[in-house]
Amino acid sequence: MNAIDNKWIGQRTIRPDGVDKVTGRAGYAADNTMPGMIWGHVLRSPHAHAVIRGINTAKAEALPGVKAVVTAQDIVNFPLDKSVMLGIQDMRWMCRNVMAREKALFHGQPVAAVAAISEEIAAAACALIEVDYEVLPHVIEIEDAIKPDAPILHDFLKFEGKSSNIAGTMVNKVGDIEAGFAQADLVIERSYDTRPVHQGYIEPHACTVSCTADGKVTIWSSSQGQFMVRAMTSLLTGIPQSNIRAIPAEIGGGFGAKTIIYLEPVAVMLSKKSGRPVKMVMSRDEVFRATGPAPGMKATVKIGMKKDGTIVAGHGVFYLQAGGLPGSPLRGPVGCSFAPYNIANVLSEGFDVVSNRPKVAAYRAPGAPLGAFAVETVIDELCEKLGLDPLEVRIKNHARPGDKAVYGATFGSITFVETTEAMLNHPHYKAPLDKAPAPHIRRGRGVASGFWYNAGGESSAQVNITEDGNVTVTTGHPDVGGSRASTANVTAELLGIDHSRISVLIGDTASIGFSNLTGGSRVTFASAMVVTQSTEKVIGQLKERAARIWKIDPEAVDWDNGEARPAGANAGKFPPLTLKELAAKANEMGGPIGAGIQLNTVGADPGFATHIVDVEVDTQLGIVRVIRYTACQDAGRSLHPSYVEGQIQGGVVQGIGWALSEEFLYDKTGKMDNASFLDYRMPVCSDLPMIEAVALEIPNPKHPQGVRGVGEAGILPGLAAIANAVHDAVGKRFSSLPLSPPKVLAVLDA
Amino acid sequence: MNAIDNKWIGQRTIRPDGVDKVTGRAGYAADNTMPGMIWGHVLRSPHAHAVIRGINTAKAEALPGVKAVVTAQDIVNFPLDKSVMLGIQDMRWMCRNVMAREKALFHGQPVAAVAAISEEIAAAACALIEVDYEVLPHVIEIEDAIKPDAPILHDFLKFEGKSSNIAGTMVNKVGDIEAGFAQADLVIERSYDTRPVHQGYIEPHACTVSCTADGKVTIWSSSQGQFMVRAMTSLLTGIPQSNIRAIPAEIGGGFGAKTIIYLEPVAVMLSKKSGRPVKMVMSRDEVFRATGPAPGMKATVKIGMKKDGTIVAGHGVFYLQAGGLPGSPLRGPVGCSFAPYNIANVLSEGFDVVSNRPKVAAYRAPGAPLGAFAVETVIDELCEKLGLDPLEVRIKNHARPGDKAVYGATFGSITFVETTEAMLNHPHYKAPLDKAPAPHIRRGRGVASGFWYNAGGESSAQVNITEDGNVTVTTGHPDVGGSRASTANVTAELLGIDHSRISVLIGDTASIGFSNLTGGSRVTFASAMVVTQSTEKVIGQLKERAARIWKIDPEAVDWDNGEARPAGANAGKFPPLTLKELAAKANEMGGPIGAGIQLNTVGADPGFATHIVDVEVDTQLGIVRVIRYTACQDAGRSLHPSYVEGQIQGGVVQGIGWALSEEFLYDKTGKMDNASFLDYRMPVCSDLPMIEAVALEIPNPKHPQGVRGVGEAGILPGLAAIANAVHDAVGKRFSSLPLSPPKVLAVLDA
Repeated sequence: MNAIDNKWIGQRTIRPDGVDKVTGRAGYAADNTMPGMIWGHVLRSPHAHAVIRGINTAKAEALPGVKAVVTAQDIVNFPLDKSVMLGIQDMRWMCRNVMAREKALFHGQPVAAVAAISEEIAAAACALIEVDYEVLPHVIEIEDAIKPDAPILHDFLKFEGKSSNIAGTMVNKVGDIEAGFAQADLVIERSYDTRPVHQGYIEPHACTVSCTADGKVTIWSSSQGQFMVRAMTSLLTGIPQSNIRAIPAEIGGGFGAKTIIYLEPVAVMLSKKSGRPVKMVMSRDEVFRATGPAPGMKATVKIGMKKDGTIVAGHGVFYLQAGGLPGSPLRGPVGCSFAPYNIANVLSEGFDVVSNRPKVAAYRAPGAPLGAFAVETVIDELCEKLGLDPLEVRIKNHARPGDKAVYGATFGSITFVETTEAMLNHPHYKAPLDKAPAPHIRRGRGVASGFWYNAGGESSAQVNITEDGNVTVTTGHPDVGGSRASTANVTAELLGIDHSRISVLIGDTASIGFSNLTGGSRVTFASAMVVTQSTEKVIGQLKERAARIWKIDPEAVDWDNGEARPAGANAGKFPPLTLKELAAKANEMGGPIGAGIQLNTVGADPGFATHIVDVEVDTQLGIVRVIRYTACQDAGRSLHPSYVEGQIQGGVVQGIGWALSEEFLYDKTGKMDNASFLDYRMPVCSDLPMIEAVALEIPNPKHPQGVRGVGEAGILPGLAAIANAVHDAVGKRFSSLPLSPPKVLAVLDA
Repeated sequence: MNAIDNKWIGQRTIRPDGVDKVTGRAGYAADNTMPGMIWGHVLRSPHAHAVIRGINTAKAEALPGVKAVVTAQDIVNFPLDKSVMLGIQDMRWMCRNVMAREKALFHGQPVAAVAAISEEIAAAACALIEVDYEVLPHVIEIEDAIKPDAPILHDFLKFEGKSSNIAGTMVNKVGDIEAGFAQADLVIERSYDTRPVHQGYIEPHACTVSCTADGKVTIWSSSQGQFMVRAMTSLLTGIPQSNIRAIPAEIGGGFGAKTIIYLEPVAVMLSKKSGRPVKMVMSRDEVFRATGPAPGMKATVKIGMKKDGTIVAGHGVFYLQAGGLPGSPLRGPVGCSFAPYNIANVLSEGFDVVSNRPKVAAYRAPGAPLGAFAVETVIDELCEKLGLDPLEVRIKNHARPGDKAVYGATFGSITFVETTEAMLNHPHYKAPLDKAPAPHIRRGRGVASGFWYNAGGESSAQVNITEDGNVTVTTGHPDVGGSRASTANVTAELLGIDHSRISVLIGDTASIGFSNLTGGSRVTFASAMVVTQSTEKVIGQLKERAARIWKIDPEAVDWDNGEARPAGANAGKFPPLTLKELAAKANEMGGPIGAGIQLNTVGADPGFATHIVDVEVDTQLGIVRVIRYTACQDAGRSLHPSYVEGQIQGGVVQGIGWALSEEFLYDKTGKMDNASFLDYRMPVCSDLPMIEAVALEIPNPKHPQGVRGVGEAGILPGLAAIANAVHDAVGKRFSSLPLSPPKVLAVLDA
């Protein structure tokens, strides 16, 4: 996949974190222990909706072995009437998500927590806590939550002047849709609904926290950002950031849901009260009931097209399920759904709807796969009805550099056209579908595209030369998707030394400059940028020292292939000085060699994906199987192709799960009925074909190595592409996800 | 003590590490554990001197629970014929000190090591290792080791053409001593001997090491330098520095002896072989038998003085006890003994003598207290015989800025005269001795001075502003004597913010630039310098951002009292911007705020001490008690006076121990007879008076805060001052330390 002949960039080097991870030596959040450590356990609401009239912790506190009990009284209260934002998170909701205050808003919401000398005693003590609940009627689904007589979760939330479960709205608009639809030869309007899905990371949330008598806090936890952990814990505990050290453990997946915290502030307060280090580890059941998920959606999308395939107008109305507390990712469907296309008239509206489910968290391109599902399915139907090739139509309509996006930006160096063209020309698209093995098996092919913003943001790096002439590089964001590997490749390339001479480590909040989350498809983009600038500073130091040794101007020194060489008029006058030789002279020449930089990176232009999928539908059982999948994405440049492909493949698999099998099932009391990996059905290897990942490498001109973010776009087209493929197979349109066997059979039987 | 009116510098702020240490929460080396960890144990030589003909580890390896066995074959072999230096350490000796190779050279030297699932099994396995020793005659004392027929430890060491136990020599020379002595009115020559003493840190050596399958090593250990641990472990294991991460634990004392390693390379090889993390913790017995100590000495010193007190010539011959492997600190006595004085004619000679004792390690001003003991006692006797005041004579002879030192340097901003003048004018010196309580109790007073080089060297710092406008500072050397406290004071002063808003942390080798040892009285000097430069860079960033907000030139912005203010023509035009306000705008203005620097610091001019001590001697029991002690030292400037005073007092106490009670006792087989704190007699509180520490604050002009190193000079004068005081009390001169009751009685009875 690598179009450029580099020595290290683009190579599939051994992953720095690989051996540790496959041998079980990598330290994840639950692997940490401390002398004197005790265990925390969370008491969770047994009700989907209830006023908390009082909590009596006396019996729990009296249980031998119990060292501390915490309730919402111990967490900083952000009053409901005033928003306090940290990035996109409103602390009003976060403090209540961490510990219920006035009300329990979903089954499983934390109500209190106990720390004790064993997990068993902590759990037993939780059972002794008496909570005086006033149980209220609850509501689970969007359509119920927006009914006039729905139980209202938050009285103070007003919509159109009345208390409502609609917590917020968002509108993106361009042109005049009525005028647009009037120009169309064909207008199609369809409604959609999808279920919340869980991010499904393999590692449950866990942390070990030590708060000492002088209020200094150390947190070991698995997250997508140690600085996020520090900042949010600071706000929720009132402890200044400078007194909190957040140490990142290895992370067993996050996919967006570890961009916020659940346990850390509770553990801090338990540790502060008990004077002991406290460890907390969620069970899978707790993860399902009270973390994540991505929102479900109710949506209506209407698109007008001319006979030649020109899209003239689009209207989307997207209701997203926020969970018990506001904050669903409206900018996903509202901003992204129509963004692949240069459409003159668009109205895209979003509504944030609360109901008695766990509060949603970010999930790979938050909200955007839902919008893409609706829009890309309508486009498919328009193409079908007008007899047009769905990829050619997309290419015809694709936004190009300089076009204005519906969400307001003017596009820079986007490569939507090239990405879809790569799929149009791909052997998969040209190949006929194989004949199905039996008459009740129907095969079909679908395509779809998807847009994601991508992000730059704050990153920091430090590059140091060891006394023996090797290199350590430290960055400040957890390595979720291969940032150590890409960093090693970039540094080796710039310094011209063997990859094995570079160690890359993830610093804690005390040891590296502020670095924003590992999320938003930003880390490879941003960290390569700061690592490059830091390494270039180091090369400058090396050249300056060589120049002093040779008594020539630093400008007259080249750095090439791991050594300083006199250049220009001095070329060949002195033997080269290697990195090892210059490192050995570091002390006498002014001190250690190393440099760092802290930067708010910019230039991360949007990412894009187009997918082709072949499915077969068992019309007797209603089972949909994916039999071939090709996913193309505009990678800019692959620093480490295996990881880029891994991101694409991972996104595809999650899209398949969302499309076909994943959903939260609730009983009548508002309790999730399938809170385990046995009952919540994520795709496993046997459900999947090999997924061909095509990383389109057209370098991003705003990045030193040409990188474009690749982490999220891979999840975007799958939901629609699969629904379109199923239609192709069976001739029926599907508007509700997941395409589980009962739903498929119901549509086929209709 | 603080002469300068500062808000934070010179204040006795709460120690950042204080609460953790007094509450037991601080993590020392032995406090770390890891999943899957096993235990290492060392087999040590039962002989003081023996050829190792072979080692059979088969039975040990076969013991159930044993996971790995290591011998010298697993440690990198530095051949005897070629020196490989890392700083002042020769790897030839270090590799053999870590694991005996051809020979066991002292009782307790490591011969093999075992890692097993428990400490008990590891110890049992060690007992099963069969070592084929050829026991050789041994030699313990210097006078025996330099005899012509002494057992030779290392055949390849030649002195005057013959195999010898004299492993090295050092000479400092100025003028012509014969001509000098000819000018003297009185010449006195005396011989001295002292015993090795142990550094006696409260925390035994310990480490936990993880070596993973891909050869990446993490070391948690207590040391005086994580970068030293990394470098030495790299050399002794052959693993590149970039693959080793050394994490500093808190350190329970080192005093120089933790500037080298013992366990770490052994633990690395045990971990590498077993595939498991390995923990090793020395017992106190092991610490005494195989670490430290400071050398013993045999010396002869001859000094000539004129009647007016002018010292005209000095000749010193110092034999230091290196232990079983070469490397005693000759530059201590050879370079320092005569350095306080501007003497026209000096010959100072040193001899490094091996014998079958543990290899010496650095100890607070290595070797210098021994030389001072000899020279300062002879000066005292000269003053006594010539009827001169011993402090006035010292002042008369003291070196002054611009004088040339016997060791070659030209003195910069030294303040020897001022320090001794402070003692001459001190109430203690003017006060008469109280009458002794009984006739057999004799009281006396002594004085002495001492010189130490001090050092600068490599340090790194990083200063970052948190998003909430507080500060984290990271430095790269373990906090032995208060570097966190002084760093917090310096940063608060420069930024003009409350001390509590600053957190200071010690980085590991991956997270901060190379920083040399905590030793050589260098860390407060060097770290304050790099912290100052880093903080000034941060202030520059803050001013630049304020200037951009105000649209004025950054030069026109002042930083004062924690905020940016428009200055000059713009003064008062805009309201000030606080650190918190600028931190909140960091992202939109270019990214995180923070800066670091890596520097080889210079300008650490020598340190100096003059002490006054009153003793009483129980002439019936031979017990010497210190009843009043005043110690003056040229501190330059006290960043945190409590820590400066602590350094002075700590040095004094160690000098008292060295003078009065500490010594290694050997049995006839060459085995140490008193390897415990019960039998090796260090001073405890009940042995000591309150020690008055006088920090003379004349700022060092080469340092931003005026700091001069204070860590070591406090140990220098005590040995001589006490011996002089005992002479004052009983009228007898003492030339052998310690002044233990049997020795005192022997001299009194003579």
